Amino acid sequence: MKAHVLFSGGKDSSLSAILLDPFFDIELVTCTFSILPVGDIAKVTADELGFSHRVLELDRTILETALNIIIEDGYPKNAINFIHKNVIETLAKEDAVSVIADGVRRDDRVPRLTDPEIRSIEDRFGVKYICPLQGYGRSAVNMLVEKHLVIDEGQSDSIAKADYETELRELIRQQYGNEKVIDIFPQHLQSRVLKRI
Amino acid sequence: MKAHVLFSGGKDSSLSAILLDPFFDIELVTCTFSILPVGDIAKVTADELGFSHRVLELDRTILETALNIIIEDGYPKNAINFIHKNVIETLAKEDAVSVIADGVRRDDRVPRLTDPEIRSIEDRFGVKYICPLQGYGRSAVNMLVEKHLVIDEGQSDSIAKADYETELRELIRQQYGNEKVIDIFPQHLQSRVLKRI
Repeated sequence: MKAHVLFSGGKDSSLSAILLDPFFDIELVTCTFSILPVGDIAKVTADELGFSHRVLELDRTILETALNIIIEDGYPKNAINFIHKNVIETLAKEDAVSVIADGVRRDDRVPRLTDPEIRSIEDRFGVKYICPLQGYGRSAVNMLVEKHLVIDEGQSDSIAKADYETELRELIRQQYGNEKVIDIFPQHLQSRVLKRI
Repeated sequence: MKAHVLFSGGKDSSLSAILLDPFFDIELVTCTFSILPVGDIAKVTADELGFSHRVLELDRTILETALNIIIEDGYPKNAINFIHKNVIETLAKEDAVSVIADGVRRDDRVPRLTDPEIRSIEDRFGVKYICPLQGYGRSAVNMLVEKHLVIDEGQSDSIAKADYETELRELIRQQYGNEKVIDIFPQHLQSRVLKRI
């Protein structure tokens, strides 16, 4: 059975793929709105991990709607969740896709689908949505990361990642300038996976 | 790293152990209040699965308090959660225990610890609490069960299990009669694992 794992090149999505690997045929999927070469960045990490990888090009209107949401809100949560839901629905519509996974952890607040959203997607598209790390807290994740991955950590703007935030930040920068990006996104630690141990 | 997996002999706790197996040294732990030989029942299944197994004898006052709760409530939820929390805390107090896992699924309402309860246990006892199936819905669990396990399914009173309900039902039967058991516990489908594929 094939599992399509949403992949940003970070530790959570990498570890999710590693946890599923003994039980599924893994394909990593990196989404892009073609604002930045995030697919290429993720591919380098996917190759290091030894997983099959593809880039899914998404409709730019999804990112533009997310931009409107984040500018209106002044904070990222709803915009990131909007992108995440649309990404999963886009993937779920593909005929060959029956299992979708992502790197959401127990402590994550964003991105996160609600239980009704998950049930709706599973029922409408006949897919299974799995979050392998949903039952793992931060210290359990860190322990497994230490055992299985070599990572580079730094602030959001210094780490080349392929998550939703990366292209959304870039679109805000292009249209509203860098100060708006700093206004909206709190600085937080990001990780990028360098290799698998 | 050793993971102590709470084990009832049912499909969820068995599958949880299987999912953790490639990453941890698994020890199945079956709890008993010595009302029924649930430890022996679970040991047969544990041997079939090929995992190391032990029986943890719990203080009978935990079950007696749960009995008071369930008789007062008239439904099982709070009593079962009370037992579950006490089981995890008992295990967490053991010096050699640093990772505790159970078979709680995304759709389970009972037993379930709240996020503050989980954080409190992890912080007070320095353990990691993992629910490998927390990010799996019913259909994903069923798919993996079909692939990895042969199970026997039936109504709660016809399947020999080693879950908290089994001994709590028996204590109610002894003290209040069988009709009270039927009053309190809704009939629901239970599974017992026969072997691993």
